[in-house]
Amino acid sequence: MAKKTHRSIGHHYIVEASGCDPKIISSVEKVQQILVKAAEIAGAHVWSISVNRFPPNGVSGVVVISESHISIHTWPEYRYGALDFYTCGSDVDPEKAVFYAVEAFGAATSHITEITRGIDDGDKIYYHSLITWEEDFVNEKKKR
Amino acid sequence: MAKKTHRSIGHHYIVEASGCDPKIISSVEKVQQILVKAAEIAGAHVWSISVNRFPPNGVSGVVVISESHISIHTWPEYRYGALDFYTCGSDVDPEKAVFYAVEAFGAATSHITEITRGIDDGDKIYYHSLITWEEDFVNEKKKR
Repeated sequence: MAKKTHRSIGHHYIVEASGCDPKIISSVEKVQQILVKAAEIAGAHVWSISVNRFPPNGVSGVVVISESHISIHTWPEYRYGALDFYTCGSDVDPEKAVFYAVEAFGAATSHITEITRGIDDGDKIYYHSLITWEEDFVNEKKKR
Repeated sequence: MAKKTHRSIGHHYIVEASGCDPKIISSVEKVQQILVKAAEIAGAHVWSISVNRFPPNGVSGVVVISESHISIHTWPEYRYGALDFYTCGSDVDPEKAVFYAVEAFGAATSHITEITRGIDDGDKIYYHSLITWEEDFVNEKKKR
């Protein structure tokens, strides 16, 4: 009987951040600083950085890290940021990076789905699993 | 009584592509060509491209498009590719681009989750919704 294996290749956090500080998420410089610091906190090696102004006030940024990426797209007029943190390997901690970035953007609350990617049961047919939750940063701060 | 609104900002496809052609997904040049063509098929304007070799044989690529991105990370040794297509606005068609890319990678089957991002009910508290399905490309080809 074949040994049953159950592996996964990456972890991907999909984040809708609400109530962000428009001054922060409309600044190309600040968004870039936060993304790079988030990659550092995750323990990831940065390969390339692309952060651009999306007219009139939005910012689109992608940081490519080892076999994965961090991205942010912002709508300051809605105080909204759409974040992605996709990391591979056991040497990185994407959750720490997610919480750092969302707090740095000044978000009040976030809707988060964690996707475990590239799961296979030894048959090389890959799938993902999902878990969704809300994170309330204003309340978390008050509790401390 | 306030008018009820229900809007969304983007569509994000999370794809695990299995049974890909290792010759294609191990080639930096081919992966870049497919990503750029996929952006074109989606109707998106390309802002920046970053495609790198991940040793020994993998490829990591991100194409930044208007307020969104397309990414691919490949593991040729597993015939596996992890793709993301995130697009905003009504002028783009990410699903066409997803199917083009996955077929171009020679995938036999894909596990796909479509995420509707930045949904709000007029209160500027953003969330996303999810739908997951399997797409069998070998069988689709046989049917034609």
